[in-house]
Amino acid sequence: MPTIAELDRLRVVLVSTRNPLNIGAAARAMSNFGFRHLRVVNPYEPAYREARSAVGATAVLANTEQYSSVAEAVRDCTLVVGTTAVRHRELQHPLRRLEEGARLIRKRMASSRVALLFGSEKFGLSNEDLSHCHWLLRIPTREENISMNLGQSVAVCLYELIRDSKAARRSEKVPLAAALEIDRITAMLLEALRTSGYLGRRRVADAEQRIRRLVRRLNLPARDAVIWLGILRQILWKLQLGQDPKSKPTSED
Amino acid sequence: MPTIAELDRLRVVLVSTRNPLNIGAAARAMSNFGFRHLRVVNPYEPAYREARSAVGATAVLANTEQYSSVAEAVRDCTLVVGTTAVRHRELQHPLRRLEEGARLIRKRMASSRVALLFGSEKFGLSNEDLSHCHWLLRIPTREENISMNLGQSVAVCLYELIRDSKAARRSEKVPLAAALEIDRITAMLLEALRTSGYLGRRRVADAEQRIRRLVRRLNLPARDAVIWLGILRQILWKLQLGQDPKSKPTSED
Repeated sequence: MPTIAELDRLRVVLVSTRNPLNIGAAARAMSNFGFRHLRVVNPYEPAYREARSAVGATAVLANTEQYSSVAEAVRDCTLVVGTTAVRHRELQHPLRRLEEGARLIRKRMASSRVALLFGSEKFGLSNEDLSHCHWLLRIPTREENISMNLGQSVAVCLYELIRDSKAARRSEKVPLAAALEIDRITAMLLEALRTSGYLGRRRVADAEQRIRRLVRRLNLPARDAVIWLGILRQILWKLQLGQDPKSKPTSED
Repeated sequence: MPTIAELDRLRVVLVSTRNPLNIGAAARAMSNFGFRHLRVVNPYEPAYREARSAVGATAVLANTEQYSSVAEAVRDCTLVVGTTAVRHRELQHPLRRLEEGARLIRKRMASSRVALLFGSEKFGLSNEDLSHCHWLLRIPTREENISMNLGQSVAVCLYELIRDSKAARRSEKVPLAAALEIDRITAMLLEALRTSGYLGRRRVADAEQRIRRLVRRLNLPARDAVIWLGILRQILWKLQLGQDPKSKPTSED
């Protein structure tokens, strides 16, 4: 995952955005994922004013910088990446899928500033805007519906930038019950099954083994083992009470 | 990446959603990423009607199923996962980061249906809703701003589900210019530098080598090499013309 200094090297650049909700949504996703520098180029003015004055406007929105051209908005960046939904149109640029593009952006963020451009809701980035880009990025949407909502595509791109690929392989550890606890549960369940008539009173090795495997397959968490023991003990006590009014809970455990 | 059959095993379940824009945004992200089955539980009715009648409502929205309880909405699923922004609150469930959780969901989608629950904008999922879940998923947002927009969190979760981890390592191949072309460009540049007076007329091995390395570091794409050759040839011709009105472009290439 990128460090704070690295996150601070990204400039999210919204070009000619029309809808104030989208400017707000971009700022919110930036705040969620730890990016702080938003730039807007020629926003539709009422939309920009509305977004900035919105209730709950984030610090990101308050510090937004406004430019009148893409050239100015990216001039301190060593890498300029445009986002596009288009795949094949006469693209004059290398086009990378988000998974790979984000990797390259992260690499560059280690040492210098990167601009990530998002075009207008209706037209995307113009050819003039694209001429400032080193390469283009596309989110891997379906061919049948390539056009994403602007706020959502900002969120998805930023998520991929902060994504921790190691976390995908990190398996969460719920401490599981030890064999001793599983054995106690199995013994009590067997006793209950015999008492209830589910199993015959005489021991049948095969039936016992099936029940033993059944309990093992539950993969009981350690903290649940004690609860199941209590449940079974109570059931068993009640079952035995039904058979012989004078009997008491087993004193085994 | 999941197959179409696998994508079709996911049920996106929106619980008590209030804002029609969010129902629409969830449906749009589903359509972008190839998921088709949206379920809503107790939506705020006017919001639901508004979302379904919205211009451009997707096929996803048209086929949305409505339920009055989470239990009903998930009953055909073998895995039920709740999303939460919360990290530590008395969570009674295992909590997984999106990167890892998505891996487990994809695994399950290979054979049976999975429900992915999103709570209301204001309160998230209730404890009653959560009691239907096997485990919880969180998007790795910053501690300082954990609360994501609903439409954006649906988009980010679905993106992670269709993400192709191999694409991150796939390096895009721009065919680069071969050494022969680089040599031609270097020779012509050297000639231009001598003619212009940037380099002395006499060969200086060291200077030549510096220029040679300078050109190599450009990593010129093959398709650009011919353009640069043309540019240099023209410049060189003009330079030589200025020196001797009778000279012509070099006939080397």
